[in-house]
Formats: sequence, structure tokens, C-alpha cells
Amino acid sequence: MYQLLKKENGARRGRFDTPHGSVETPAFMNVATAGAIKGGVSAQDLHMLKCQVQLCNTYHLHLRPGDRVVGELGGLHRFTGFTGPILTDSGGFQVFSLAQLRTIKEEGVYFSSHIDGAKIFMGPEESIKIQSNLASTIAMAFDECVENPAGYEYAKQSCARTLRWLKRCARQMEIQNSLPDTINKQQMLFGINQGATYDDLRILHMQQIAELDLDGYAIGGLAVGEPTEEMYHCIETVEPYMPTHKIRYLMGVGTPMNIVESVARGIDLFDCVMPSRNARHGHLFTWQGIINLNNQKYQRDPAPIDNDCACEVCRNHSRAYIRHLLKSGEMLGMRLCVMHNLFFYNTLMEKIREALDQGGFEKFRRRLSGIIDRRI
Amino acid sequence: MYQLLKKENGARRGRFDTPHGSVETPAFMNVATAGAIKGGVSAQDLHMLKCQVQLCNTYHLHLRPGDRVVGELGGLHRFTGFTGPILTDSGGFQVFSLAQLRTIKEEGVYFSSHIDGAKIFMGPEESIKIQSNLASTIAMAFDECVENPAGYEYAKQSCARTLRWLKRCARQMEIQNSLPDTINKQQMLFGINQGATYDDLRILHMQQIAELDLDGYAIGGLAVGEPTEEMYHCIETVEPYMPTHKIRYLMGVGTPMNIVESVARGIDLFDCVMPSRNARHGHLFTWQGIINLNNQKYQRDPAPIDNDCACEVCRNHSRAYIRHLLKSGEMLGMRLCVMHNLFFYNTLMEKIREALDQGGFEKFRRRLSGIIDRRI
Repeated sequence: MYQLLKKENGARRGRFDTPHGSVETPAFMNVATAGAIKGGVSAQDLHMLKCQVQLCNTYHLHLRPGDRVVGELGGLHRFTGFTGPILTDSGGFQVFSLAQLRTIKEEGVYFSSHIDGAKIFMGPEESIKIQSNLASTIAMAFDECVENPAGYEYAKQSCARTLRWLKRCARQMEIQNSLPDTINKQQMLFGINQGATYDDLRILHMQQIAELDLDGYAIGGLAVGEPTEEMYHCIETVEPYMPTHKIRYLMGVGTPMNIVESVARGIDLFDCVMPSRNARHGHLFTWQGIINLNNQKYQRDPAPIDNDCACEVCRNHSRAYIRHLLKSGEMLGMRLCVMHNLFFYNTLMEKIREALDQGGFEKFRRRLSGIIDRRI
Repeated sequence: MYQLLKKENGARRGRFDTPHGSVETPAFMNVATAGAIKGGVSAQDLHMLKCQVQLCNTYHLHLRPGDRVVGELGGLHRFTGFTGPILTDSGGFQVFSLAQLRTIKEEGVYFSSHIDGAKIFMGPEESIKIQSNLASTIAMAFDECVENPAGYEYAKQSCARTLRWLKRCARQMEIQNSLPDTINKQQMLFGINQGATYDDLRILHMQQIAELDLDGYAIGGLAVGEPTEEMYHCIETVEPYMPTHKIRYLMGVGTPMNIVESVARGIDLFDCVMPSRNARHGHLFTWQGIINLNNQKYQRDPAPIDNDCACEVCRNHSRAYIRHLLKSGEMLGMRLCVMHNLFFYNTLMEKIREALDQGGFEKFRRRLSGIIDRRI
């Protein structure tokens, strides 16, 4: 499914084929938590914003409207109107970060819904069944997300459990894909590498999950508050043990420069709420750095958010107008900001791919360094 | 500026030419209070939604971002990106409905901002200067909006003052349009008929303001809680005294059927927050009646909001998806609902014009009666 087209040092230019179309990699997944990007952006908008892959959250959709409802309506593609590949996470991360009163057992996790307190059980089989109902292109394995920092012994036992859970996920996925009523019988499964910040655990776990010959491999448990250098170290540690011919996904990362640096270390796929979340607060990415549109200095600024940006927002609206909308609490302000930031991220990935195609990635990386992540 | 193209009984099919383009009438103005439709709808969206005229609120824009800021940025057309005609109200209605601690004097109204309590004075000259800074296509006269019900003596004195204020508005408009720095030197002025529910006051006031040969005439002080029949009676009372060759605007009206009935009584132009406000609460107009998308029965409904609607929302999204978005508090839900309702209103006006063109308005009116305003 994944073709490695070209390499420049550690950076990979590739293509990932799915039943819902191909993804040119490196790629960034735009996060549509409950089936829509926060900020009033639709599936039609996403196509215009150069989004290749949409990520939806299993935990949220299981609670509301319910994966059975989405399934009855034909799955996430029909439900949201997005025709390209859709990845669903396993719900694991949200169970550990959002849910209340959770108890972890060998069979899975007992927890209470953060919406209405309802008692819910989710284990590997349940997560895969839910993702099968959602009919995403790619399902993620149900894993345990240990807290950071975690003790060595706990992390070691958690890794072993996550491996056992992964095998149960793979078995359940085979069952789901063979059922007559399953919407997407070619649903893919990605495994997730864990191991906290312990190199030996990370490596052992990666070796173990690589043996399962899954459709792709993710690195999880990073971007949870650790120093950036520690994250890069972890990628460098694990990467040599990731199968070359499989797509590699770094979960929940990150800033534009985090992405460039991780591509340099061999990562193909990313997701992060940063572009949409920051946008809703008026923090906007530009090719000169990050601006805060709430600043008084933009009150009478007739320029677009970024003169070097070709997005619909920058072609039509001034900083002064968008700032006014944010200050007035007008929903349109948030929508315009979210659209700009997503276009920026998707364009960043496009530029990374072009640089790789032309053998100029290292030059591109040096050019952006110290520029695009700075506040101006 | 206004051409009467055709009549069917009292209903008028016309065209209103402005420096920012022509408006085919009868027409509905889409309300962009602070320079944007509430619900995340942009000027580009408005053009797609068949909106001919945008209405912006002087009071809101005067307080934030300030009419001088908008003026410095080139006026409302440049600021919002809407290229068609824009009408600004005078601020009068908001001063009387939103502002605190107001005192009415002959010179104008002293009041406190509802945003930060700042003390502000607005009279006819100030309102026109502000609207000149905003550079709308059409400015409205600054009038007093009396409470409903109002005593006869108070209403009579208020009418006389509103007439004196109108003359001051007209003089100030002449000054503004002759200043070298004025952005739109062809700004038009509409007068507003008042007189509460008293036929003789309404008629006398209409006769007096008609003498001023303004660019258009509005009926104000209606749609403020009085019975619908009283509103229709007032239109029927005043209409014979409105100049035939001037456009006629019924302020703040109304439901789809209110609009059809008012067209039948000789009205050309409308505005109302109802389509966007109701949309944000999931109340949607269809050609079969009004639906409440929050109802449980739509949870698994794969149909569009309205099978007979050609809007982008109905072409792409199901009731089930939009209901889910509303229930999840996703901004996209509100945006899709607002877009549908505005498209419905603008299409209603288009159908009214087509019916008038073909001499079938009375048939059209009968066909909609009892249908489009009912809850289903």
C-alpha cells in the first residue's frame, strides 16, 4: 500500500494507496473530532484547503451520535461528505485524557462518559467494532497511553499489554472485514509504538509490533509535554526498527518546525489540533512566523494575514476585518482563521513534498528553521 | 433610481439601480449586523446564496470597530468584501432597544454603549456622518422608535420630531456627499414613516416625508410585537401615500408569508434576522413548512433539510449529520443551517419575482398560504 518514491537522507517521499484514494506523503491529517473541523469548516471546504486525509475521533463519535447511527447512515464518508481517506483513532487516548473514573483491566478500560457520566467499557475488540461501524479507511489499534513521566516497570508492563491488545485488534479486524454487513471490508489497521521515554522498551515494542505486518505504524505517547529534543531522540531511536515499506505516523505532532524535523527523521504522516485550535484564538501561521491577530497593531491593517499565502481567506480579507470579527465574537472570524491555518499546514506538506521531489529538502529545512515557529 | 416594471394588483415587480449595482425587487436584505452574517457566513458565501443586498448595523459598527476605522479601510464594501449594494440602518432602532440610560432631546439621543457603558451622543447629523464613513450604498434616516403601544399625543410629537430630524439628515447627507474625502459621494437616503398604530398620524407623516423627494421610503415601527393583521392594516393605510416611483422598504419583516403578504400590499424591500437567528437554533424553512432539526426523529434521517432545495447544504449534507453537529455544539452545524435559511429567503424572493414576471403572483401567494409558515 505504501510506496517509497524517493529519499533525501532520512526524509521519505512516498505514496500511500487506500480504497478511498492515494495520499501523497509526507502528509498532514486535518482533525475533524466529532465529524467536523472545529471552526465551521465542511468537507467541501477541506477539499479546497488541500486536505488529503481527515482524522475523526472514535471516542467522541461513539458517545455522540453513536457509531451505530453513523454506520446506519453509511459510515463516516457518507456522514461527513469527505470522499478522501479518513483515519479514526482508537479512542484510547481520549479514554485516558477525557473520560472519568477509569479502571484499566486486562480485558480493556471501564470509564464514564465525559458528556453524561454513562458507564462504558472499551477494549480492543470494542474499539475495532466501533471503528468498523464508522467505516473509516484506517483504524488505529487500541493501546494504553501511560502518563508522562512513567516508571520503568509500569511502562514495561503497559507495553506488553498494548502488544497483547494489538493482537486482539488484528484478530477482530479480520472478523469485521469478513462480515457481510461491514461497510468498508478493506479497512486497514495501524499499530502504535509505545514505551514512554525508555529506549530499550521503545525498540523492543517496535520490533514486536513490526512482526505483525500491519498496514502502517504509528509512534504514540509523544507530544504530551516532554521537551522537543526528547521527542526527536525517541523518533531517532525507534525509526531504524520501523519497516521501510510501511507508512509511519507520528501521532499528535505538531508545530510546523516539529513536522519538518520529524520528516527529516523519517516520518510520513502527522495530525494535530494545533492549526485549528490556535486559529480560533487568533494565532495564525505565516511564512514569516506566527502572528497574534488580537494585537492592537492590526486594527487598521489592510494587508491579508500573509502576503505570501494563496488561500481564499488571504485573497479576500484583511487582517483588520478578521481581527474585528474575532473581537466581536463573530463566528466568521474563527472560520476564516481556521481555514487559513489548515491551508498553511497542507501547503507546508506540499512544499515539503516538492522539496523532496527536487532533492532540495535539506535546503528547505534550513530556510524555515528559526523562522516559521517564531512569534512575530 | 427605482423603475416599476410590472404590477399585479398591488404587488410590484421593479428594479432599483445603485452605484453598487442593480437590485431586482421585491428583494430581501441579508443582515450582517457587525459586518458579517451571524453563523460564519462570508461575503463570498452571500453571493453564492443569491443575496442581492446586505444590511449592516450602524450602531454596532460605530461602537466596534468604529466607523472611522471602517472608513480608513475604504468603507464597508472593502471592509466586508461584499461588492453589491449595502444598506446601513441609522442606529436609531438599536439606540432605543439595546443602549442603556438613554435621554431623548431635540438635538438627538444621549445613551450608554451596551458593550462598555461609554457615554455616546447620536443625533441626525452624527448618524449620517457615521453612515458616510461606513460608505454604505443607502443610508437610513435617524428616527425615534416609539414603544408599542404608544399614547396618541406622544406618538404625534414623536412624528413631528422624526420629521425635523429627517430634514436635518437630508441636509447633512448633502454636505457629506459634497466633501472631497467622502468615499461614496452618491450615498442615497431613505426616509422612515412612523406614527405608531394611528392611521391619521401614519398618513400625515407619510405625506410630509414624501414631499422631501428622497431615494426611497421605509415603513418603520412595525414587527415589534403587534398582531400581524395590525401590521397589514398599517401597510394598507400608508401605501396609497407612498410615491409610486420610489422603492418601498418594510423594516424588520418577517416570516416568509409576512413577506408574500406585504409584497401583495405594495412593498419592495425587506430585512429580518429571522432566517439566520432561527437557523442557529435549528429551526429551518422548507417549501413544506418549518422543521425543528433538534427533534429526535431526524437522528437517523439521511434526507437533506429540504428535498426541494438546490442550496449547497441540501446538495451535500443530511439532516442526521447537521442535527449531530448542532447537538455537539459544532460551529459547522450553525453555519450550514444559516446558509440554508438565507438561500431559502433569497429563493423565495426570486420565486416572487418570477411569479410577478409571469402574472402568476396571486396563484403563487395562494399556493404558499398556510404551507410555508406552518411547523411540520
